[in-house]
Amino acid sequence: MNEWKEYQEKNKDRFLDELLSLLRIPSVSARSENKADMVRCAEEVKARLLEAGADKVEIFQTEGHPIVYGEKMVDPSKPTVLVYGHYDVQPADPLELWKSGPFEPTIVDGKIYARGACDDKGQFYMHVKALETMVKTNSLVTNIKFIIEGEEEVGSPNLAKFVTAHKDLLKADVILISDTSMISLENPSIDIGVRGLSYIEVEVTGPNRDLHSGTYGGAVANPITMLAKMIASCHDENNRITIPGFYDDVIEATEEERKLMAKAPFNEADYRLDLNIPETWGEKGFTTNERTGIRPTLELNGIWGGYTGEGAKTVLPSKAYAKISTRLVPNQSSEKITQKLLEYFRSIAPAGVTVKVEEHHGGEPYMTPIDSKAYQAASKAIQATFGKEPIPVRGGGSIPICALFEKELGTRIVFMGFGLDSDSLHSPNEKFNIENFYKGIETIPYFHLYFAEA
Amino acid sequence: MNEWKEYQEKNKDRFLDELLSLLRIPSVSARSENKADMVRCAEEVKARLLEAGADKVEIFQTEGHPIVYGEKMVDPSKPTVLVYGHYDVQPADPLELWKSGPFEPTIVDGKIYARGACDDKGQFYMHVKALETMVKTNSLVTNIKFIIEGEEEVGSPNLAKFVTAHKDLLKADVILISDTSMISLENPSIDIGVRGLSYIEVEVTGPNRDLHSGTYGGAVANPITMLAKMIASCHDENNRITIPGFYDDVIEATEEERKLMAKAPFNEADYRLDLNIPETWGEKGFTTNERTGIRPTLELNGIWGGYTGEGAKTVLPSKAYAKISTRLVPNQSSEKITQKLLEYFRSIAPAGVTVKVEEHHGGEPYMTPIDSKAYQAASKAIQATFGKEPIPVRGGGSIPICALFEKELGTRIVFMGFGLDSDSLHSPNEKFNIENFYKGIETIPYFHLYFAEA
Repeated sequence: MNEWKEYQEKNKDRFLDELLSLLRIPSVSARSENKADMVRCAEEVKARLLEAGADKVEIFQTEGHPIVYGEKMVDPSKPTVLVYGHYDVQPADPLELWKSGPFEPTIVDGKIYARGACDDKGQFYMHVKALETMVKTNSLVTNIKFIIEGEEEVGSPNLAKFVTAHKDLLKADVILISDTSMISLENPSIDIGVRGLSYIEVEVTGPNRDLHSGTYGGAVANPITMLAKMIASCHDENNRITIPGFYDDVIEATEEERKLMAKAPFNEADYRLDLNIPETWGEKGFTTNERTGIRPTLELNGIWGGYTGEGAKTVLPSKAYAKISTRLVPNQSSEKITQKLLEYFRSIAPAGVTVKVEEHHGGEPYMTPIDSKAYQAASKAIQATFGKEPIPVRGGGSIPICALFEKELGTRIVFMGFGLDSDSLHSPNEKFNIENFYKGIETIPYFHLYFAEA
Repeated sequence: MNEWKEYQEKNKDRFLDELLSLLRIPSVSARSENKADMVRCAEEVKARLLEAGADKVEIFQTEGHPIVYGEKMVDPSKPTVLVYGHYDVQPADPLELWKSGPFEPTIVDGKIYARGACDDKGQFYMHVKALETMVKTNSLVTNIKFIIEGEEEVGSPNLAKFVTAHKDLLKADVILISDTSMISLENPSIDIGVRGLSYIEVEVTGPNRDLHSGTYGGAVANPITMLAKMIASCHDENNRITIPGFYDDVIEATEEERKLMAKAPFNEADYRLDLNIPETWGEKGFTTNERTGIRPTLELNGIWGGYTGEGAKTVLPSKAYAKISTRLVPNQSSEKITQKLLEYFRSIAPAGVTVKVEEHHGGEPYMTPIDSKAYQAASKAIQATFGKEPIPVRGGGSIPICALFEKELGTRIVFMGFGLDSDSLHSPNEKFNIENFYKGIETIPYFHLYFAEA
């Protein structure tokens, strides 16, 4: 469709400026101090949806951050596409590692550096601009609904209730999500699975106050040492997770699927070089792509306790903490695994300390069938603009709400991610290539076209 | 000596006010931002020494923080007592756990709460007021020298050079230090040993940037997990330290000494209750007092890495750090143990990460013979004011400079500590009982009297 391309070419600078404006709002859902920014961001999303041609946009309040709903209905007999995205972002720290302010988007070498550039402001905004393209060129052949939430990065605690309460409003034939990545612009790919998530926090308390490590050291259990022992026990010598029953419900990938995965372009030496690691690590018997795609994992996300400042302080601290998360694969249940994690950490609490464990958010794993109408439409759309059939891959990340969408709405999900693994999601200097942003806006209208035709 | 007591009684409010003034200066030697405070504190110490009757006081610059030297010479034929103390303090954090500002000394129930109240401003200042008492009552029978340094809490890196360069100036018959504790005012005790110290910092680097734990988790070694494994390996199942050769040079305490130690009043239930711990911990085969007195130990002083803020962040961090110190007993060498620690951590570095280890300050263990003239004078002084013979004990703390003093100056050291183990040294809400402060000022002149007589 030359009309689309022409319209986008003429407006591309404005598209970018609008995204930069969104990126300037520090919409960190995990931090209570950003509550007002969340509201401001939701309002900006609403305004942009209206400008893009949505004919009904509403902000729904929740017990947490607001949800933005928008729609453009063309014909009740046409299929309806529900676009899901999120305007909230991960916390930006460690701030000192950012080369430019996380909320002062900076363009270097064709890349936008900002928290949320790729995850997920840059990606959901492609859909807003795709809507605009189709509306302004009178070529929209599907009904489009948008649900842009503000709590994805904290496990979407209020979205479930909203979805359940608004089943009619959210009725659709497919849910389209751009919150994943592709291998590269040269090797486009489509994520057919996301992993589930369980996340816990462990607090180990030794003495009731920080102690002098000379006066008390050696006679009082040190909470850091005890926490380290607990963490060290979570993986065995083959880097398999030792939590009892952890692998019980895992559906193992077939040999066929593993063979297909092995065909995706991947260079281990480049991977090590990019991360500057002496060697890769992981569960014995699996390749790097298998470890992040088809295997469940357990990662330490944070640890702290005692003196962490400059120089030396001889303290035996009162407390030590860790944040720990697991990624789950199909058929594992986030709730069951969270229970197993809580039980495990309580059961291995060493004598001499008190261990408190609590859960953060979780989410279920999800898989898209390759033979579905939606996957085929996505695949054809990518072929139309990339000139190449995309490779189906299983991504390592999690989108907690997927399983719920399917359960409550009975609607299949398809992922069309235009980010790259190297976009530093959740890390300092998160980026999104401007080329990927434009390529996404170019590709999405084809999805609607092919999905309506199918 | 009723004259002493009378003079002290008349001036006790001023003595206290002067100490409070010293405590208001945030003389944290480890923090570069307190450099000017260190200078101000040294100047205040100088002024107080002059007022107390010292006839020569000088501030010596070093490559780090200044050293205050003072003296009051009465007669070259009389014995000379060198008082060592330090005006620097430990960092005050975690600040949020202080009930009042660490540098806004607050008196509650007869206790002074402030960083440095006991360690060591409150204790060295007793000597300044004891000097004043003897000078003003014309009863000083020894020569007194003071060396009050500003780097004890960071391992006295510049004091060694100063001592070596000023052997004549520092010539003395005994070195008297109040930087330890006693069991209680009812059960006075004298420390006959301090432990040595080795202190290292470990930095574990995984990938070159923080990663998304979903995209990379399970395929890249997590520096927190690797650090936890390293820490967990430092103690075996009997809580003995596993560093190869760690115990090689330890001179085991004799059965006789252990029997004597067991006689010191100690109630394990009270100890647990005071610290609110379910049970004590430590090296198998030793009692709590033995573990902190005659055994070397290894403690985690701090750990940090990844996301440590509110809520959940799914990051696989680039780096994790730990601060680790060991306490050493007679015949262990700080330098040798530091080397063993560095080698150990380098040797167990897990594949997939890079481990960097560096040393902070260290110090040698030290023992005072009970049959020495100085110990006997200290014991008699305490009997004179407490009405009870003090119990000799081996303290768990470290005073890095002791071994050097003896080596360079050939002078024996005696400890007369008036703090309590429960004074929260190095912790939030450090305190010093006003009664202990006054009792110290009352007792010290007797030491000079008996030492001159002996």
